[in-house]
Amino acid sequence: MYIGIDLGGTNIAVGLVDDNGKILAQDSTPTLANREYKEIVKDMIDVSEKVVAKAGFSMNDVKGMGIGCPSAVDNETGEVVFTANIPSFSNLPLVKEIQKYHNIPVALENDGNAAALGEYAVNGENAGVFVAVTLGTGVGGGIILDGKIFRGSNGAGVEIGHIPLVHNGIKCGCGNRGCWEAYASVTALIQQTKVAIEKHPESLMKAIADSRGAVNGRTAFDAAKQGDKVAQEVVKKYIEYIAGGVLAMVNIFQPEKLVIGGGISKEGDYLIKPIAEYVKEHDFNKIFTPVKIEAATLYNDAGIIGAAFAAKNML
Amino acid sequence: MYIGIDLGGTNIAVGLVDDNGKILAQDSTPTLANREYKEIVKDMIDVSEKVVAKAGFSMNDVKGMGIGCPSAVDNETGEVVFTANIPSFSNLPLVKEIQKYHNIPVALENDGNAAALGEYAVNGENAGVFVAVTLGTGVGGGIILDGKIFRGSNGAGVEIGHIPLVHNGIKCGCGNRGCWEAYASVTALIQQTKVAIEKHPESLMKAIADSRGAVNGRTAFDAAKQGDKVAQEVVKKYIEYIAGGVLAMVNIFQPEKLVIGGGISKEGDYLIKPIAEYVKEHDFNKIFTPVKIEAATLYNDAGIIGAAFAAKNML
Repeated sequence: MYIGIDLGGTNIAVGLVDDNGKILAQDSTPTLANREYKEIVKDMIDVSEKVVAKAGFSMNDVKGMGIGCPSAVDNETGEVVFTANIPSFSNLPLVKEIQKYHNIPVALENDGNAAALGEYAVNGENAGVFVAVTLGTGVGGGIILDGKIFRGSNGAGVEIGHIPLVHNGIKCGCGNRGCWEAYASVTALIQQTKVAIEKHPESLMKAIADSRGAVNGRTAFDAAKQGDKVAQEVVKKYIEYIAGGVLAMVNIFQPEKLVIGGGISKEGDYLIKPIAEYVKEHDFNKIFTPVKIEAATLYNDAGIIGAAFAAKNML
Repeated sequence: MYIGIDLGGTNIAVGLVDDNGKILAQDSTPTLANREYKEIVKDMIDVSEKVVAKAGFSMNDVKGMGIGCPSAVDNETGEVVFTANIPSFSNLPLVKEIQKYHNIPVALENDGNAAALGEYAVNGENAGVFVAVTLGTGVGGGIILDGKIFRGSNGAGVEIGHIPLVHNGIKCGCGNRGCWEAYASVTALIQQTKVAIEKHPESLMKAIADSRGAVNGRTAFDAAKQGDKVAQEVVKKYIEYIAGGVLAMVNIFQPEKLVIGGGISKEGDYLIKPIAEYVKEHDFNKIFTPVKIEAATLYNDAGIIGAAFAAKNML
């Protein structure tokens, strides 16, 4: 069994994971991301020990630990190279810091890659080519080739949110224009919803947003499902933005399976079906087996399970 | 040594290639693509035998043959699955047909993949991740991972010309809208040049086109180099279209090296430098080793050498 740590800017989520990707026990603690790295590392250790004990095991039963980090990492040296989310972790030899407490093998991964590996481990059906897309504050994802995380030659690959969707289009958080993320992230959807509400204050979206105190990623979907035409148009366009980038991934990778995750994937078929239809219609491949497009199923557990599997795969 | 055949809609180009990617002898004959497959296969064999003899060897010295085909191929069964360019080759078990003449190992590849493998073999510097982009009638390319052609799970991957560059943009030959190919192919450049000439008949481009009888892929570049402002604007925009798609490949693959080929790559630094600058400026990766972007160097030989290396790698 393996410890999987999903280290986020908000929470340190830890699970003890068996060889089949089942979480035997889990717990979390706030990251309090502006602290000294030593305090955060200590919390990572404390929660890990707690989780192992909770499942009725001891640290001697643990074969390895994996950490998914919201950062650029060097998975060979075990160093966090840069992270905007947990400032004291930039340039930290994290694997060594962990091993000061427990002399076990530790795998360090980017969090997007770890989450993709988690989805693959549990839902990948041993696909030779597997792609996970995560829609959230940004658009991220991971690519698993023959069971291994693909990172590009320098470890910085698979920034799929920053492929162009609209050449010279709207500004993206990265500073460029027209990135897929600028159209298909939940942040973008919220913005698209706000613009539509401003133009159409009679839309049900406004009432829903007002009753909840703010526009969020569900506002347009909820109004659309209740028949609001303006919301349906927002959702339709948003889904096409997602599908446009998914199509790029399909025409490049032709994966056996592509999963779409992030909180919004809870919309299920309402989100996934039109994406799959768009891709089917526009896929350049009309001859060979088409890609299966599905909602990711692990939600927040993907990071924990994937981090654990990063350790498993390293051994 | 290996025979490499670059089978095109126009010519059957054949070379005898040594283990270092050097062409020892080469020859070609017209494909006359509407003929019965038997006649075309016979010509492939005849030219191969001729080339081997020309180099002073016999067929017994040949370890294998590779064929790059302008089609969807099944490289495991050795069948051409579909080709619009050589109609009688669709559904042809080409490897078996070849082996009726010579009992040697035969590798069948898509021509874009074969050309990428050729560039990799000669100029790839053993890159773990290598991308070749070819600008011609369309936009094609190949991806070489750890020395092997990446084909996607079903053999239909790496249709990089059909990733979106402009969501819902102009119509592409594939039937979709906004594909990279619709903006960055030489066909697109010719169209962009024609539109500019229509708006600005005073541009030097018109005089150049008239003197040559037609607009071609060099018209705008030649006029731009002579200081024509309208042509410079056409070239600038065209280069940005190329760079936009290259950026997608970089942000996904972070290759050690990416080469840009096709006839237009003969423009050299005038084409490559601004692409490399655009990518450097927009690359999401600002921390790790950046990609090297260069002009491909093998031109028409890439297909022959790559086909030969497909055979070499198979053995």
